[in-house]
Formats: sequence, C-alpha cells, structure tokens
Amino acid sequence: MTQVRVCVIGTGRAGMVHAENFRWRVPHAELVAVVDADATRAAEAAASLDLSGLGFGDLPSALASGAIDAVVIPTPTFTHRDLAVQAAAAGLHVFCEKPMALTLAECDDIVTACERARVNLQVGFMRRFDPPFVSAKRDLDAGAVGDPMLVRSLTRGPGLPPAWANDVTRSNGMLAEVNSHDFDTVRWLGGSDIVEVHAVSAALKRPDMRESLPSFYDTAVVTAVLASGAFGVIDGICPADYGYDARAEVVGSAGVLFVGDLHDSSSLRFTREGGGVTGHFVSWRERFKRAYELEAEEFVDSIRESRAPVVGGSDGRAAVAAVLAARASLAEGRMQRVEN
Amino acid sequence: MTQVRVCVIGTGRAGMVHAENFRWRVPHAELVAVVDADATRAAEAAASLDLSGLGFGDLPSALASGAIDAVVIPTPTFTHRDLAVQAAAAGLHVFCEKPMALTLAECDDIVTACERARVNLQVGFMRRFDPPFVSAKRDLDAGAVGDPMLVRSLTRGPGLPPAWANDVTRSNGMLAEVNSHDFDTVRWLGGSDIVEVHAVSAALKRPDMRESLPSFYDTAVVTAVLASGAFGVIDGICPADYGYDARAEVVGSAGVLFVGDLHDSSSLRFTREGGGVTGHFVSWRERFKRAYELEAEEFVDSIRESRAPVVGGSDGRAAVAAVLAARASLAEGRMQRVEN
Amino acid sequence: MTQVRVCVIGTGRAGMVHAENFRWRVPHAELVAVVDADATRAAEAAASLDLSGLGFGDLPSALASGAIDAVVIPTPTFTHRDLAVQAAAAGLHVFCEKPMALTLAECDDIVTACERARVNLQVGFMRRFDPPFVSAKRDLDAGAVGDPMLVRSLTRGPGLPPAWANDVTRSNGMLAEVNSHDFDTVRWLGGSDIVEVHAVSAALKRPDMRESLPSFYDTAVVTAVLASGAFGVIDGICPADYGYDARAEVVGSAGVLFVGDLHDSSSLRFTREGGGVTGHFVSWRERFKRAYELEAEEFVDSIRESRAPVVGGSDGRAAVAAVLAARASLAEGRMQRVEN
Amino acid sequence: MTQVRVCVIGTGRAGMVHAENFRWRVPHAELVAVVDADATRAAEAAASLDLSGLGFGDLPSALASGAIDAVVIPTPTFTHRDLAVQAAAAGLHVFCEKPMALTLAECDDIVTACERARVNLQVGFMRRFDPPFVSAKRDLDAGAVGDPMLVRSLTRGPGLPPAWANDVTRSNGMLAEVNSHDFDTVRWLGGSDIVEVHAVSAALKRPDMRESLPSFYDTAVVTAVLASGAFGVIDGICPADYGYDARAEVVGSAGVLFVGDLHDSSSLRFTREGGGVTGHFVSWRERFKRAYELEAEEFVDSIRESRAPVVGGSDGRAAVAAVLAARASLAEGRMQRVEN
Repeated sequence: MTQVRVCVIGTGRAGMVHAENFRWRVPHAELVAVVDADATRAAEAAASLDLSGLGFGDLPSALASGAIDAVVIPTPTFTHRDLAVQAAAAGLHVFCEKPMALTLAECDDIVTACERARVNLQVGFMRRFDPPFVSAKRDLDAGAVGDPMLVRSLTRGPGLPPAWANDVTRSNGMLAEVNSHDFDTVRWLGGSDIVEVHAVSAALKRPDMRESLPSFYDTAVVTAVLASGAFGVIDGICPADYGYDARAEVVGSAGVLFVGDLHDSSSLRFTREGGGVTGHFVSWRERFKRAYELEAEEFVDSIRESRAPVVGGSDGRAAVAAVLAARASLAEGRMQRVEN
Repeated sequence: MTQVRVCVIGTGRAGMVHAENFRWRVPHAELVAVVDADATRAAEAAASLDLSGLGFGDLPSALASGAIDAVVIPTPTFTHRDLAVQAAAAGLHVFCEKPMALTLAECDDIVTACERARVNLQVGFMRRFDPPFVSAKRDLDAGAVGDPMLVRSLTRGPGLPPAWANDVTRSNGMLAEVNSHDFDTVRWLGGSDIVEVHAVSAALKRPDMRESLPSFYDTAVVTAVLASGAFGVIDGICPADYGYDARAEVVGSAGVLFVGDLHDSSSLRFTREGGGVTGHFVSWRERFKRAYELEAEEFVDSIRESRAPVVGGSDGRAAVAAVLAARASLAEGRMQRVEN
Repeated sequence: MTQVRVCVIGTGRAGMVHAENFRWRVPHAELVAVVDADATRAAEAAASLDLSGLGFGDLPSALASGAIDAVVIPTPTFTHRDLAVQAAAAGLHVFCEKPMALTLAECDDIVTACERARVNLQVGFMRRFDPPFVSAKRDLDAGAVGDPMLVRSLTRGPGLPPAWANDVTRSNGMLAEVNSHDFDTVRWLGGSDIVEVHAVSAALKRPDMRESLPSFYDTAVVTAVLASGAFGVIDGICPADYGYDARAEVVGSAGVLFVGDLHDSSSLRFTREGGGVTGHFVSWRERFKRAYELEAEEFVDSIRESRAPVVGGSDGRAAVAAVLAARASLAEGRMQRVEN
Repeated sequence: MTQVRVCVIGTGRAGMVHAENFRWRVPHAELVAVVDADATRAAEAAASLDLSGLGFGDLPSALASGAIDAVVIPTPTFTHRDLAVQAAAAGLHVFCEKPMALTLAECDDIVTACERARVNLQVGFMRRFDPPFVSAKRDLDAGAVGDPMLVRSLTRGPGLPPAWANDVTRSNGMLAEVNSHDFDTVRWLGGSDIVEVHAVSAALKRPDMRESLPSFYDTAVVTAVLASGAFGVIDGICPADYGYDARAEVVGSAGVLFVGDLHDSSSLRFTREGGGVTGHFVSWRERFKRAYELEAEEFVDSIRESRAPVVGGSDGRAAVAAVLAARASLAEGRMQRVEN
C-alpha cells in the first residue's frame, strides 16, 4: 500500500486538526473524505480543505463515493463504539480519539470488532508522541532515574468541556474527557497498571454551573496506586483560564524527571516592571501540534507496515477503567479498585 | 533592648545552623550559650563557635552563668514541650523548631506557657521567609492569580529521618518531621485552614526498612481539603536521593504560580552529550540558607520591637493537627477530619 | 492557482529538507520535480520521496517533462546566481537559500531577473519564521522593550562547513555560510541597516586546518554599527561540538528580550550527580524544523496571493553586503563601511 | 589573631554594604570604625550600625581611637591610591574596591606599599565569590567544556554612574566603573591575559547627556583577544532600566557554559495575559548579596590564616590595563594592545 486513504468522521475542533494533518502534513496519507452528521458542515469542511465534493453525511455515503482504507473518529465519546464497530465491519483501520468509550463493555466491543476484521486500532493518546514525553519515556526505560515511585500528571485547560460532556449518560465528565490523558500517562510512564484510585472534586471556578448541573465540577484531584506499589497523582482543572497546561513529573528511586512546560523554546523579556514570557500555550492545538502530526504518522506507518500501532485498544480500555473507578470514588468518597 | 542574648538548645545539624546564624549573621543578636544534654558536645560546639566556656549541659546551668533573653529549640520533637515550657517559665522568648510538638495538648501547653509569661513564641516554618515563597505570597495577596483553588507543596530530601523519628511514640513520622512544612505551606498560601485530609504511604525506596519497622514508609501522598473548598496536594519522599526538593504550585481562579526550584541562579552547561545544571540543591541547609537567616532576624526583630512574630503557636498547632489527621488516614484508609 | 508546482534543485541536506517539506507538509504545494547535476542522485532522491521518475539532471529536463511554477535553490552559494537567473527567465518563482550570492553584483543580477520576469523572489532566512523569533519581533514592534540599543545574534553549529566553503573564490567563508542569518537577524530585529562592521577570527578548535587552508577559521566575533546608532554583536563557531545554538538578545531603551534556547519544551531530570536536559538541539534541522515549514508556506502563499514574500532580494543583498565588509575587516584589521 | 578589627572608609552605597557585612555577617570580623571625609555622615553611619561614637572624619582619627587591623576602601576610584598607600603604611591590611586605581602607576604604588608593609591586598572582584560564577570556574578548571574559545561577560545596571565618574581626569568612565568586573571575568574564566581590545561606544539611552558631557556614553561593546588566542566579548549599558544584569557565557572546545541569571530561584506565574517572573534583580546589592559576604569572609580568613587572598593586586592591575586600552580604542577607533 503506497498511500493510505483516510476518512475523518466529525468536523469539530479536534476533527479539523486531524483532517488538516491527514490532508497536508502526513507523508503517505491521502485525505479522501470528511464525514459529519450535518452534511452541510461536512461539505464546508471539505471545501476548506480544498476537497470540494468530498464531504459526506455518513460513512456509507463516503464509502460509496470511493475507496477508503482508514477512518479517524474524533466525535463525541458516546458515539465512538458504534462508529468504530461500523468502520471495522467495513474493513477499515480505526483511529479512535480518547476517551475510547463510555464503558468497558463498549471498549471490548471495539477491540473485538477490530480484531475480527484484522484492522488496526489506535487510540488518541497523542502525548505518547510528544517529543518531551517521548524523551522522558526513553530516559525512564534506560533507568536514568531508577524505578518509578511517584508519577504526577496534570491537565488544565482554558475552556469548559462541551455541553454533552456534562450529561452523565453521555460522558464520564471532566475526568474522562480531559484527564484520560493523565490516567494513560501515569500508567505509561509508571510502567504499571493502576489498581486503586481516590478522587475528590469541586466547582471552585464556576460554582454557578452547579445550580443547573449538580454533577458539575471544574477541579479534581486523584491519587492512584499502581500494581508496582508506586503512586500516581493527577489533577484536572477546566476552565483554568491561564492557558493550556499539560505536564508530568516522575520521581524514581534514583532521580526525578520533569516533562513539559507552559511555554515553548522561549522568548523571554524583562522590563523594570518584571520578567515575562511571550507566547505561552493557551490551547492544546499549539502545545501538542507536533504530537498530533506524529500520532497520525504512526497510524499511517503502522498500516503501511502491517503492524500494530504503539497505542492500542488495551491502553484506551485501561484509561476508561481508571476513570470509572475515579468517578465511583467521587460518588462514594473513598478508594476504589480499578476493574482492569 | 539593644542586643538580644540567645541560647541555642541542641547541637545537632539544625542546632548548629541556628547557632552559627545567631553567632555570626543576625544583626542585634548575641549568642551567649549553647546547651546540649551531652555537655562535652555542648563544650565542643561552643568552642567551634569561638565561644569557649559557653557550652552547658542544660538550660539552668546556662542561665546561672549569665543573662539570657531567648532560647532556640531545635531538639527532637518529643522534647519540645518540656523545653519550651521550662524556658517560658524562666521568662525567655521561645523559638521552637517544627513540628511544634507531638500532640495538640502539647501544643496548647506551649502556647499557654508563653502567653502566661508574655514571651514571644515563633515556630520554625522558615519557608515563610524564603524569598521565592515570600514573593509568591505577596503576589497571591495582591490577587495576581485570583483565589486559590489548588495548592501543591512537596518536600523530598536525600536522607533518612533520624532513628527517633521511626519510634511511633516519639514522632508522628515523616509526615510530621518532613512534611510539616507542606501542611503549613498549603494553609499559608491557600489562605485557609485544612479541614480534611486523605493520605497514602508506602516503602518504595527502602522496602528493607519495613522488616524491622512495620510503620516505616518513605513515600507519602496527601490530598487536603481547605475550609475555602480549595484542595491541597502534598507529597513527601525520604530518602529521595536526587537532592533536596521543596517546591509549591498554586492554581488560582486567574492563573498559576510556581515557587522554588531545584537549583539556584543557574550555572548551566551543554556538551555534545547533553545539558547539565551545576550545583543543584542537595541539602536543606543550602536551599533555605537565606530563609534560616531571615527567620532568625524576624525572631530578634519581633523581640526588640515588642510585637508578635509573623509565624506563631497557632500556625505550629494547625500543622500538627493536619499531620495527626493524615496519620489517622494512613491507619484508617479514608478521609479524616482535622481537629482544628 | 490552486496548487503551486515546485521543483527543488539540489539534493544535499538542505535540499532534502525543502523537498520533503514541499512533498509532504506544505498546504497547496505539489512537488513535481527534483533536480541534481548528478542525475542518478536526483533519481534516487525522487524515489525516496515516492516520486519515481521525477528526478532530473537539470532544470530544462524537468521543465520538458511537465509544468513547473516555482523553484527552490538550496545548492552551493556560487551556483545561486546562474540558477536563479535561469529560473526567472523561464518564468518561475524563485526561492533562493542564503547566502543569496557571492557578490553584490550577483545579488543585483538575481533581483533584476526576477523583477523583469515578474516572479517572486524569497531568500531563505528561515529565522524570520521561527515562532520564538517571530514573537520577539512582534514584541519589539509593539515597543515592549523600547528602541533597540544592542542586538546580539549568534550561530554555533556542530559541523565543519562543506569543502567548497573553504575555497575563497567560491564562498565568503563561515561568516557568509553560517552567520548570514545573524547579519540578517541584527538588521531585522534592530530595525536598521548595518553601516559598519569590525571582525576578528581565529582557528581555535581546529588549528590543524590552518596548515592546508591558511584562510580557515572556526571562530569569529563581529561588532556592527547600525544606521540608528545601535550596536550589533555576532559570533560564529563551527564546529562547536556541543550542539546547534542559534540565539538572539535585544537590549532596548526599556528592557531586554531573549530569543531561542538550546533545548525545546523541556524534559529535565535530576539525579544525585546533577541536573540534566534531555534532547537539546544538535542540528539546525531540529531547531528550525517548524521555521523551514513556515517559510515554505510563505513562499507558496505569496505566490497564490500574488504578493511579495516577507523576505526578499533586498534582505538577501543586505546580508551579503555586511558579510563582505566583515570579510574585509578580517583582512584589514579595522572597522569597514558596509556598501549598502 | 582571633577577631579581625576592620575600618570601612567611605559611607556611600557600596561602603554601607561592606560596613553592614563586617558589622553583622562576617565570622571573626569586628567592625571598629567607619570613616567618611564628611564626619557628620560618618557619625550617622556609625550610629545606624549600632556603633555610636565610632564614626570618624579620617583614618588617623580612627586609628587614634583604637586598634585597627584592616581597612576596606569603597571610595571613588581617584582616592584609592592615596588611601591604600596610607593604610598600608600604617600596617593595615587593605581591601580595595574596583577599579583598583586610575593608572597602572597608581596600581603599582598600591602593590608596592602593601608588599613593603607585608599586608594583604584584596581587590573587590566579588563575582569571583558568587556561587554560580564559582561553580562555573570549577567546571572550567575540571575541563567540563574543554579549552575556552570565547568568553562573554556583560554588566548592565539601572543607574547612571556617579557624577565624578563622568570627569575624565577622575575616572576611566563606565568601562572602568562598571565593566571592570567583565574585564576581570574574561581574564579569570578565560584563564589567560587580555592582550588586545577593540571598543565602541555610544549615547543611545541618554543622548541628552552628551550635550554637557561630550565624553558621555551609556552603551559600549568590547572585543578582546586573550594571550591564548581566545576571544572575549564584553558589553556595558548604564542606565539599562530593566534591572541589574550580570552574566557570562564560555564556549570551550567541548561545550558551552552559562553563568548567572536575571532572577533568583524562581517565583514564576502565568495568567491568560502571559507568563511572568516575580522578583528579578534590580540592584547589584541583591544580585551579589552573597558574593559580597563571601569576599569579606575571604578577606578576614586570609588575614587570620596569614596567606594571600585569592584576588589580589595583579588582578586589579590587569583589569585597569585592559580598561585603559579599551578607552584608547574608543579614542583611536581601532584595536589596541594592552600594556600588561
């Protein structure tokens, strides 16, 4: 297979990041269709990508118009299972955004469908491709700081989650929509499954939201225990206002390791009034621009090379399991076992 | 009062830091005696300070030899109450190292004794004098990052605690001996009392220590809830091996603020092999050198100016209360109310 | 014009960076040919870009095989004039790598040819597209640090220049091949032409090279005076061994501004032995990866939008003028006027 | 000798920094007198140091009132020679602020007087005691970055020099009063004498000053050549407005090394508007607080241990020689030999 023909389903913010990458920036990939339940929006998205006529209202219409090898699914979480199963049934490789699904049963459905169809399944944990995270993982694997004892991971973002994420039947809330990345990071950098979690949450930034949405919270802190005995500490804050903040810290038996920063290769300035950093990150799109490109390259490369991608269904499922336990802890007020 | 005449009780590592500061670096202070239960050691300490003949085996002997205005008590925790009460009874101002005492009752005894004697009582939370912490507090008070929502504070140190700190009848353990500072920092920077805590601990670095000491742990993570609703996150690791690490991070409704660093005003280098920092902190003595001097200046200044010091008995007591709740949480496995 | 059809001439290291960008990463660009005087190498380069059959031994052959809108010229400096003039004569837009040419007369030939053919001419000062440099320039233009008084710019790279760069008839040496960027940066950030320069050089790293090449130097320091009265300070070191280092610093009447770093958004670690940065830059390809993409986007966008690119022939010529004066200063041992 | 009895001559800003250190912060030192030509000011200074009655109008009066072992001379440069020679003649150890004197002959007079009297002579290059500079020098000596090829050193300060520094018969100007430190740093870190210098200067920040003072400049750039062949680059800006900035950078044959920072162990914050550093240095008193204490300790220790101090008269003289050559270069417009 020389070029991988990709269809992106969903034209929201994340959808367009993927669509633009597969259209312009991923070697050996060809964007051949964009799908959105709102067909007008799909058409507009296609036109904006210089692909007029390649926007469709659903996957079958896209398939009817030409050959497709793979789909990217960056739609709301509650739609992942059905779309992924449908795509796998059509013999298409699947890239599924995080969180993988709402329940472990849904995760299992996706995994089974992909296995049966012998197609690749990659989950959108793009931090695993971010150069600072990658070099940290390489350092850890080389024993640079010994065995992990404490892994901290956090995500704080400037915006409120989308409305559907506040519907407890359609989303596992901020811990899922935002902190999925952190549960995955703790497990990945810690090199061990999460077996227990304790979580607290509160509406500190937007107490007003609680009035209409009793389940709303904007701040959460999670303590995790790994199978190795090591601890994880996660925090999530949305909206955080000050920017997009995604960092990690690993204390090992021989050292400590910091990953990520609030600003890029610096442009720093000082005046009499104080020192300032120009250009800190205010969006995940900027912070993880390169990581989104690299995870797309991995998706295409793994298909071309007929091998499993480096982040698969079991990773997506493990994060969902930890999120569900954290959600239970919020409700129950104590440590919860993770159903791995 | 022109010069404040100071007696330091205890000639261990912390004791000598205080003794050297009061001897050489604190304006308007005069070190007039050092006391140690081991009188030989007291004599040697005095000689090393160019104060031959001014080392004593106990406070009464020191008092018998000349006038004293104030004492500094950097002895093991379980001795604080008796020494502080004895000094207050003798009309001496009291500087008491952290943790203030073993129990809330002991804390109350010290506070009462000092109030009755109308002497000053300062507790050794030197981070409150460390320039980066001070400027962060000033920023917070000025509203630079809005209302605190999450306060993180950590202490990781290279050494094991002294043997007596492993005796559960003489110490509340690492959470008390090391993380007292963090409980105080969370309360101070958070601007609100700690009302609930959840703690976990493990022996990850030195599992061998568990064999002889079942209560031993080297790693702990604490989640705290403040009266304001904000959260605190504390971690402690001893021995951490990689250096002496004491940092804080405050997320407010309008921003985030970082305090402290693993290395001083930098001496950085790069070779083909990588980049390196020369001179990161490996001891609290280096990291908080200036803070120790400044807290000593405050002790002397507050006495000379007949005013209360900025960190007093109620601050010391609040940290002990939080530590006791965290210790209970380790035993009980769930959130504990703090008895403020 | 929907897609801009690009031909890259030269398949050395810089050539392949451009070829891969125009092939895979530049929206609205289509790489339609690669040219190399060594036709076998051209064919191999084309194949490695999944463009088998589109490698040619010269531009006329490429033109004979299909339509081309623009050329990219990253060949050795001494070939720039002829290639650029030939391309312009064929009605092709021209992207010319730095240094623009060997002499001011050559620069003028290129500018005239492009003007006559009404085609775009862009010079490869990619730092003008690097996000930290761009945000610094934006800060400067907004008056964030007042009027520039001193602009420092440096380039230190790990490798020796190519052999032809040591031939004084084919290259103006390291000051041209490497420090062209710095002369441009001083002029661009300083907001004023360079009118005088003083330069010193020495063979400190590789004194052995002097034996066969009396003109060889690996270290140079330049002082520049701008028309505004401000100063520029440039240094160049090749080979520098420790990595690829390209930074700038601007002191203005109201502040200072730092641009660039030796490492990216960090992955930092500490062990007992010291602190370390993982992943500092060791190649211009990594450091300016994004800048190379963005300058290519500008080239394509300016053509599609029928407007001049933001870095043109006069910028390229100004850097050559300053380099020639610096080269004269090396020979004469004193300040030299720049022939602007 | 148990305690060294010190007299500080001069009660300006630098004088009071020294006086306070010797009074309160230097082990084994006793401040026994302060001298100022303005006797009222001397009396006030003494009182502010809790030394009422120990302020004198000249050194003989101070000597008449009690024993003195050593003097500290932080008066204007043009007074150094006479005061130092007078003190040495009285058998007192001499600490002389930088620049050591106005001419090489004056330097020689001081050196000869101290040698004849067999007293110590230390020159106030306090950067040699600043912890980041010290650790850099240790790294250099250990070969961490190979042999020095380029040493950059800069000083930029917020204030104008004192009025007498603009009198060309009483001062060698900003290059002497401010950049003396940099000439010393280049020589010290470079490990080799400065043999040639080229300097340019301009009045960019305060062109208004030029009207009454034709010799005035606020910005200078110096290129230096060391005996080893390595280069030095120095800049000086006063007033710089944005803070007090003193940094160095050494490129060696195997790496690069950065010394110093604009801010201390950090207190960093981010809001939506950007990132900021709280507490950057705005005065040399803050930046080099610890260095001033440590150079004072060295002065006292070297006296007590009957050994030469680590920075002596030949170091002070070498900096004066380089400054004089740079001043000549400003007048002559080309490279000047340094009369070492």
